[in-house]
Amino acid sequence: MTNLQTRIEEQIDNISKFTATPGQGTTRLTYSQEDKQAREYIKNKMMEYGLQVREDGFGNIFGKLDGTIQDAPSILIGSHFDSVPNGGSYDGPAGVVAGLEVSALFKENNLRPKYPLEVIALIEEEGSRFGGGLMGSRGMTGLLREEDFQELTDQNGVSTLEAMKEIGLDPSLPKKRAPETIKAYLELHIEQGPILEDKKIPIGVVEAIVGLTQFEITVEGRAGHAGTTPMDRRSDALVSAAHIIAQIPSLAKEEGEGTVATTGKLNVFPNGSNVIPSKTVFTVDIRSGKEEHIKNVIRNLNELVDSFNKDEIQITVSQQLYMEPRAMNPNIISQLKKASSNLDIPYCSINSGAGHDAMVLAEVADVGMLFIPSRDGVSHTPEEWSDSLDIAKAVEILFETAKKLTEVEVFD
Amino acid sequence: MTNLQTRIEEQIDNISKFTATPGQGTTRLTYSQEDKQAREYIKNKMMEYGLQVREDGFGNIFGKLDGTIQDAPSILIGSHFDSVPNGGSYDGPAGVVAGLEVSALFKENNLRPKYPLEVIALIEEEGSRFGGGLMGSRGMTGLLREEDFQELTDQNGVSTLEAMKEIGLDPSLPKKRAPETIKAYLELHIEQGPILEDKKIPIGVVEAIVGLTQFEITVEGRAGHAGTTPMDRRSDALVSAAHIIAQIPSLAKEEGEGTVATTGKLNVFPNGSNVIPSKTVFTVDIRSGKEEHIKNVIRNLNELVDSFNKDEIQITVSQQLYMEPRAMNPNIISQLKKASSNLDIPYCSINSGAGHDAMVLAEVADVGMLFIPSRDGVSHTPEEWSDSLDIAKAVEILFETAKKLTEVEVFD
Repeated sequence: MTNLQTRIEEQIDNISKFTATPGQGTTRLTYSQEDKQAREYIKNKMMEYGLQVREDGFGNIFGKLDGTIQDAPSILIGSHFDSVPNGGSYDGPAGVVAGLEVSALFKENNLRPKYPLEVIALIEEEGSRFGGGLMGSRGMTGLLREEDFQELTDQNGVSTLEAMKEIGLDPSLPKKRAPETIKAYLELHIEQGPILEDKKIPIGVVEAIVGLTQFEITVEGRAGHAGTTPMDRRSDALVSAAHIIAQIPSLAKEEGEGTVATTGKLNVFPNGSNVIPSKTVFTVDIRSGKEEHIKNVIRNLNELVDSFNKDEIQITVSQQLYMEPRAMNPNIISQLKKASSNLDIPYCSINSGAGHDAMVLAEVADVGMLFIPSRDGVSHTPEEWSDSLDIAKAVEILFETAKKLTEVEVFD
Repeated sequence: MTNLQTRIEEQIDNISKFTATPGQGTTRLTYSQEDKQAREYIKNKMMEYGLQVREDGFGNIFGKLDGTIQDAPSILIGSHFDSVPNGGSYDGPAGVVAGLEVSALFKENNLRPKYPLEVIALIEEEGSRFGGGLMGSRGMTGLLREEDFQELTDQNGVSTLEAMKEIGLDPSLPKKRAPETIKAYLELHIEQGPILEDKKIPIGVVEAIVGLTQFEITVEGRAGHAGTTPMDRRSDALVSAAHIIAQIPSLAKEEGEGTVATTGKLNVFPNGSNVIPSKTVFTVDIRSGKEEHIKNVIRNLNELVDSFNKDEIQITVSQQLYMEPRAMNPNIISQLKKASSNLDIPYCSINSGAGHDAMVLAEVADVGMLFIPSRDGVSHTPEEWSDSLDIAKAVEILFETAKKLTEVEVFD
């Protein structure tokens, strides 16, 4: 094992100890005591690696290696350090540790960039405490307004500001960062899917973060006694929903190119074993790297729904969310691929099926993203695992790319 | 409106006032204050109609008109007087009032039976307070053992005995009634379905109470991220369940003859909009007047389930309940039909899709049952309604039949 890989394992392992659920995975909610412990650890590591540490008014952490050009925009590199309840050790921290280790390589190799390198560790990407998700990146880019941030509360009614103060954070620090201070953003993240593991390829260069739409579909029929209502007199809200849900996978498969569609949530009313369901409410989540596929699935879903909108069955479709596919920067993609080739590290192009802070930062800067394989394709569980060897490979690629983007000079 | 119909309306109306949810339907749980009020009302009406009133150790009420043969078994007539939460005014009380009015006609016509006529008002048919249902009839026939009765508690942990004492009932009174004391049982009940209303026929002569089986089916797949798991790598527990549920109505329709099958209850796990369901649990309720239809549906359901038991989807089927169809007594059926014809009241044969106290009493006596139409086929809601004119017709038929069964003599 190389020194780099050893350091990566050690840091992932250390950060994973800051959990509210020892033995049952990582539970590190934003502004919790575990956040505070992980925060101290990351800040100390930044200082050890020669970075100037600061926090913003959301509690995002920045560790800066100055550039030689005065007031030049920074190359950011990092990820988030919060977790879902009972999650894993890699979703978020793998990217933070990769950023730290890129800065360590700058230090070891005595490199001085023209453009500053900033390692970043972001809060509340998962949205597990205050909802919504991507909060740190939305905050620092100004997409989350300060007044909206202040109104957020957790499930116990604790506000963001109260929670920040509890762990000694200062909400009066600067919040929104001027877009012109950011030149590019690099992020390593675990894939959270099975593609790289299936292909036995250690690196995925992300081409796009998929577009996403979510619908809530409500089917209303008529309740009735399961014993006394003849089959031909029923308006069964669950049977109609079942016909629709059974067809949804084929709508995605027809489009291909990684298009996916999922019904994850379904509630039946009144949900009694001897009562014909009067109402069902279910979700449809549709994602694709290409907007036309999303639009086709939406059109076909509406046609499917319409075909069941009869016989005293009323179906309403409500779009809850629409986000366009977000392409990564072509220049950074090509640099990441070139660096992989030069280092003889196998890679492939991949789309990200999940949202990431990179998606938000792509609104204000050039963004590139790498994936590493997730064992068994799983994430958000204590079984989440990625190989530190793969993280080390990603760090090497990111290091080469960061050198190019920061325009390093070598001092002997 | 005849005197009979007026008296029926008045009694239904009076009993409906004993509700814990005024303005929101009838909520009359067993051994509640509303039970106590209805009980007093029914007992007073029995006395007014010249019946000897007694209660048993469950709180079932009996109003007896003695027969001339000493120690002869009784013809029972009645129904239950409890309700579901926020139920209607007719489910139960219509049958109790019909029993009372049959006894009133005996009195008015100065009839003296050879076999005693007993009007009965039973507790806890719905099972809304102590669970299980049919408690009064199961208790008096000995199918519910005294020790099991004593162990039952409501959702607040109040035991049957404590609840009885709270409204002044005496659990030490005789409980099980010797089967040889019951010659026959007649019950009027609302149909709780749309068939009679559809046919515009006021009387259904029940041929059988349908057999019933309930299954719980568990589909286990594999959770996964809705965005990062390709369609061909999914083991989606809800999609498989949806395919099965969509086919269930056709299994019942193939059998015909009123066979019904229902999925009333479905729970999805983890039930998050962006997580592929790892598990679904749903019920299948199958009913038919003929046992062979039930067995055919079970066999076809198992074949259907087996066809989806693949691709890392594991399906288990667990039978929760099986009750054979219960035929009514052919002799009583024919007497009910003959009486209808003689009175020029249109009737048809019908099966009962719901369970009734008559089903339990059929274990120890000859049983006959009449249905009257339910408006819009609904029950167990404040909108439940039946026409007092139909109840009056049923009373006339039951009166003629009771005269035959009790072998009345006329005294001038």
